[in-house]
Amino acid sequence: MFLQSQEGIAKTNTADSKTVPDKPNIVLLVADDMGWGDLCSYGHPTQECGEIDKMAVEGMRFLQWYSADSLCSPSRAALLTGRLPVRVGIWGGERLFLTTSTGGLPKNETTIAEALKEAGYATGMVGKWHLGINEFSPDDGSHLPHHHGFDFVGTNIPFTNHWACDESKIHMDSPEPMLCFKYWNSTLVQQPFRHDNLTASFLQDSVAFIHNNKDRPFFFYFSFAHMHTDMFSAPRFRQTSRRGRYGDGLREMDWAVGEVLTTLVSLQIQHRTLVIFLSDHGGHLEICTEGGSNGILKGGKASTWDGGLRVPGIAWWPGVVAPGQVSHDLVSSMDVFQTAVELAGVTPPDDRIYDGKSLVPILLKTSAAPTSKSTPSPRTLFHYCSDRLMAVRHGEYKAHFYSMELPGVDYTQACPSGVPTEDYYASFDCYDTETVTHHNPPLLFNIDTDPGERYPLAINEHAGTLFEILLEKLKHEINMVPGKSQCEEQSETVQPCCNPPSCTCNYEAP
Amino acid sequence: MFLQSQEGIAKTNTADSKTVPDKPNIVLLVADDMGWGDLCSYGHPTQECGEIDKMAVEGMRFLQWYSADSLCSPSRAALLTGRLPVRVGIWGGERLFLTTSTGGLPKNETTIAEALKEAGYATGMVGKWHLGINEFSPDDGSHLPHHHGFDFVGTNIPFTNHWACDESKIHMDSPEPMLCFKYWNSTLVQQPFRHDNLTASFLQDSVAFIHNNKDRPFFFYFSFAHMHTDMFSAPRFRQTSRRGRYGDGLREMDWAVGEVLTTLVSLQIQHRTLVIFLSDHGGHLEICTEGGSNGILKGGKASTWDGGLRVPGIAWWPGVVAPGQVSHDLVSSMDVFQTAVELAGVTPPDDRIYDGKSLVPILLKTSAAPTSKSTPSPRTLFHYCSDRLMAVRHGEYKAHFYSMELPGVDYTQACPSGVPTEDYYASFDCYDTETVTHHNPPLLFNIDTDPGERYPLAINEHAGTLFEILLEKLKHEINMVPGKSQCEEQSETVQPCCNPPSCTCNYEAP
Repeated sequence: MFLQSQEGIAKTNTADSKTVPDKPNIVLLVADDMGWGDLCSYGHPTQECGEIDKMAVEGMRFLQWYSADSLCSPSRAALLTGRLPVRVGIWGGERLFLTTSTGGLPKNETTIAEALKEAGYATGMVGKWHLGINEFSPDDGSHLPHHHGFDFVGTNIPFTNHWACDESKIHMDSPEPMLCFKYWNSTLVQQPFRHDNLTASFLQDSVAFIHNNKDRPFFFYFSFAHMHTDMFSAPRFRQTSRRGRYGDGLREMDWAVGEVLTTLVSLQIQHRTLVIFLSDHGGHLEICTEGGSNGILKGGKASTWDGGLRVPGIAWWPGVVAPGQVSHDLVSSMDVFQTAVELAGVTPPDDRIYDGKSLVPILLKTSAAPTSKSTPSPRTLFHYCSDRLMAVRHGEYKAHFYSMELPGVDYTQACPSGVPTEDYYASFDCYDTETVTHHNPPLLFNIDTDPGERYPLAINEHAGTLFEILLEKLKHEINMVPGKSQCEEQSETVQPCCNPPSCTCNYEAP
Repeated sequence: MFLQSQEGIAKTNTADSKTVPDKPNIVLLVADDMGWGDLCSYGHPTQECGEIDKMAVEGMRFLQWYSADSLCSPSRAALLTGRLPVRVGIWGGERLFLTTSTGGLPKNETTIAEALKEAGYATGMVGKWHLGINEFSPDDGSHLPHHHGFDFVGTNIPFTNHWACDESKIHMDSPEPMLCFKYWNSTLVQQPFRHDNLTASFLQDSVAFIHNNKDRPFFFYFSFAHMHTDMFSAPRFRQTSRRGRYGDGLREMDWAVGEVLTTLVSLQIQHRTLVIFLSDHGGHLEICTEGGSNGILKGGKASTWDGGLRVPGIAWWPGVVAPGQVSHDLVSSMDVFQTAVELAGVTPPDDRIYDGKSLVPILLKTSAAPTSKSTPSPRTLFHYCSDRLMAVRHGEYKAHFYSMELPGVDYTQACPSGVPTEDYYASFDCYDTETVTHHNPPLLFNIDTDPGERYPLAINEHAGTLFEILLEKLKHEINMVPGKSQCEEQSETVQPCCNPPSCTCNYEAP
């Protein structure tokens, strides 16, 4: 199924002769629901600068990193497989997996973990999964990470239903056990889960994995529960941020990121480890001060406006990625798969379409000088909502064929003093005629001059651009075969429940 | 009038024993109308990173730097005198100086230039002035910079009426001579002025001043015409930015900033030179893609929302200001005056109230670690519109007693494809009952948790905070004696006109 590449790393792709170690480690640090404008280094006015920002100073900060979807399950499926969620089948239903879903990431999809195992990589993950749990029974665990190439699976949560799992009594009177599960590998160990030591547990397992595999190549996926609502943090981080609860949570995540990098440095394996930090999609605007900030971008989580799709992306690789760089390249979370297989020297299955491309040429750039405006060969990205193609990005232009309603600007009812009273979306259903607008001709924006998507261009003055976009759309659509929807089928019989009938347990040491 | 300080620099103010050179040079680089979110280092999604961002990496970037006013004349008067515009008399009329104004910065006010001359500083300026021209005749020049302590005055423009001076034919058919003047010192040398070599001329004079004064302490005020509408740049910068015309202009200004810093370094005087870069106030939102971006802050130029007042602020002083620092301290442009007199070791006149305080303790901080949330002694800032106290900032809170109408969100009429068709404000008149809203009780925000001023706090839950603010307001108001308004009196007889009756000239070499 896999061919070891004969060429090793395609250094000829770059003008640079930088020494790239063979089979470097790859660490993916993925935040949940964190917006484009949430970090100090991405311009947040009050968030404290921390370890993630330091990572950006020591590495490359991407300004045009796009997630493949604006919801968790499809975005993560695409991240791990390098393919659009619609191809993989992560569409339909609620556009994501519920606790009653019988579907999951299909087994015939190849994850980064599976691809890299072929090259001898150790593979591991902790944290949020959200790509399915059970298929037939409350505990078959058919869709859990160890079925997708992860040999080590530490503390993990199949969902981030934090709102329903809130122990703080700010949003809920008490957690709902049937929505809140913590696993260790495929074993349910805490129901409902507790937030206090969640990130510390993720980190502890991560550090152990890195230590145990320091002498061989490894791929590790650290998938944070932060910054998903509700806004939790361990006691020692509470009230430490001037920004409030969101800032406290970000400081906890930031601490964990710092600990991972410190571990790599202390083991002296940082020069053979590419670390990528990113968010799975944009911030959840409807929950006000407890949702992320998407900066000046329009819209957020669940929409195909840029605020839903453009995310912070930082690459760190001391000695390989030059420090202090800022990339304006148009890139996608789906590029991580191609980057990983190129670095590991493996050839992934050739019986399918991949939507990403390797970031290696960008990562090996050395010039920190301002790059001038030039788009010799514009890249095209396709923005879906479920199986509906909503918008096409082509170079600096973006055409919306459909667009979703924006959250209102006055949240004083839903968020008195900025604190949300409910967890909702202004628009969620891709086919709802009340909240989704069809644009014919499409709504065309220049994202470079108008990153906030505020000033639609006059179509008659951009006929050539529109023609190019329609051509790209046509080429894309004739090759599009949607995978069988995995998000539609539901059954209450697959809901995890430990210690029935209470569905409550805690197998962790007190 | 001035007392040389007996103590020199008050190093005892800080916990640091860093060596601060006696009488360091002070260079003020001031952008016009540039918004809080315009720079790459402040999170703009498409603006190229450049010299100003490098300056931030090598120095200290302020996240809470506030201008004293959201319009040019009052903001600059306050910057140069360390006093609120209302005290100085820069209020009334149109809230700024017009070409027909007979007023200007009062002679009994002490500018930084005047204060530092007493300590033996050479003083100079180039660029935008906007603090008055003539008092009695078209050429008495009573209010020009050389009457305010600037011994060297290079190429300067009393106004940035660029819209009316547009040579590009994008906004105007032809420039209006009666609004567009370029001076060299107090001599009108070009009417209407040309944009092509404007910044290059400013820079040439700046470099000459620095070279000529490299062996003695100097104060230099480089006041850019950028980023005021319309969006001009020299030919070699046009179409160099992916962001369009605004980006091109910013790249030209950025180039000039880099040249100033390079000059200091090449003369090896950087270790005894404090350079401060800032904007005079927020970006002008009504002109769409040709106005600045205020990031996620609300409102812009002319308003007392944070988008009008919070500005980029960067301090650079190799060897003294530690590199890579980010300051969340609440500071004001009026602090520059106190900083300058402390560093120069002079005591300014004690017969008046100053509204700023020295930045020296902040500049000498060495810790780059995230500062935690703590406001032992909250600072209070007073935000005026003309002589009306609109809002009071107190620590992390801001109370609006009056607020101005916001620009609409749909600019498709005023700005087809993002390009403005007119130069206007949604709200400008501080006493217009149609566009200014009175808030009783005041509209209270927590600026740390809600920097976008979106979620008003419940007053009954913040009675203590409101009481503190009202007390500060009372103390402020009983000590407030507005200076005589300088912006009201107009006379057509003082309009500059070279070569009458055409009022057109060009005494520059071709």
